[in-house]
Amino acid sequence: MFGNFSGQMPGMQMQMGQPLPGTGPNLLPGGYPAYSDSYSSAGDPMWTYFTAVAGQGEGAEGERESQAESILNTELKDGEVDAEELQRCLTQSGINGIYSPFSLETCRIMIAMLDRDYTGKMGFNEFKELWAALNAWKQHFITIDQDQSGTVEHHELNQAIAAMGYRLSPQTLTAIVKRYSKNGRIFFDDYVACCVKLRALTDFFRRRDHLQQGVVNFVYDDFLQGTMAI
Amino acid sequence: MFGNFSGQMPGMQMQMGQPLPGTGPNLLPGGYPAYSDSYSSAGDPMWTYFTAVAGQGEGAEGERESQAESILNTELKDGEVDAEELQRCLTQSGINGIYSPFSLETCRIMIAMLDRDYTGKMGFNEFKELWAALNAWKQHFITIDQDQSGTVEHHELNQAIAAMGYRLSPQTLTAIVKRYSKNGRIFFDDYVACCVKLRALTDFFRRRDHLQQGVVNFVYDDFLQGTMAI
Repeated sequence: MFGNFSGQMPGMQMQMGQPLPGTGPNLLPGGYPAYSDSYSSAGDPMWTYFTAVAGQGEGAEGERESQAESILNTELKDGEVDAEELQRCLTQSGINGIYSPFSLETCRIMIAMLDRDYTGKMGFNEFKELWAALNAWKQHFITIDQDQSGTVEHHELNQAIAAMGYRLSPQTLTAIVKRYSKNGRIFFDDYVACCVKLRALTDFFRRRDHLQQGVVNFVYDDFLQGTMAI
Repeated sequence: MFGNFSGQMPGMQMQMGQPLPGTGPNLLPGGYPAYSDSYSSAGDPMWTYFTAVAGQGEGAEGERESQAESILNTELKDGEVDAEELQRCLTQSGINGIYSPFSLETCRIMIAMLDRDYTGKMGFNEFKELWAALNAWKQHFITIDQDQSGTVEHHELNQAIAAMGYRLSPQTLTAIVKRYSKNGRIFFDDYVACCVKLRALTDFFRRRDHLQQGVVNFVYDDFLQGTMAI
């Protein structure tokens, strides 16, 4: 569905308002962020949850499987999870720690981020990719949320976005921060939703940016195809 | 913030995959849908709710005001509502009828749809614009949801999108329908969220489409500015 995927992340020049200070080590020269998706699923406890929820049964044994299964009301045989199953799966995994479980809306855009064939579902390979990203985002949130309040401040989200390698104008950062705030603070669920959307929209844009110059000519239908689901 | 707003909706030519049959009377020749935003606020009961929630007090009297005020825990003096206040305001207004109240997420994108200065809040003029759109969407949903189940089917959402004047490819429609479904059905809240996003993203695209040809050259930062908040 996403044609012309280059699969590469070369350094590229972007037309930008103003560069942001404090960009982190992930920043490619003048370009998009570098994701670190390398993640080994060997001995991965998430495989247990995922297979229990997705109904494959493979490698699913032990107490955690029973816990995962007990929260399921339906048997799933297609080996993929939809947004509601993903929500149960992530809640069950305990990845949220002291933070509130992910909302269904956040789980929907998690699936949309990796759902390149628009099935509305997620297989285990995509789940592993999500899992790696979630852990990285969570680690970063924990380091910012030093008082373990479950929320961070506006400027901390700005810094996190810069540290992930995104170079955005102050106006765009303002729009983002307003959108993902509640009463002036950013909760973990919204922080992750923001990270998911930033990454998904950047991926979509980059796939169309054949010359990797930070400029894309969008036809209306294609623009909606890439943005409506995210 | 949105530069180069033409304020016009001329007919325009779009490069499209395949035209959809069954487009309704709102369709401009080959172009974007025509919105009907004309709405009189004279004697508008929503003014009562809005001013009660937004704390202006102007024109707010009678029983409905007390009801609206009773759901508020804080006094608001800025004359604008944020997403949580909008949610209370809409719930209180009874616009949902037999359907479940709007989720906070849907209220957030309602605000983002009209929040051209990125304050994260909505004034009464924007509220009236939203109110007109919500009523039109609700009327359409009611005509589709003939058994009053609160949900509609995939092909009914497709038809609704076409009837609103959007001409989208089958692939884009599929992506949209998957995204806004739960167990194969589309609930009223998700239907409205879909309508809000379609309109907001189309508005954003159209403002950049200076020649009204259905093609826009986006710089990465500007692309994110228009899509991250919606």
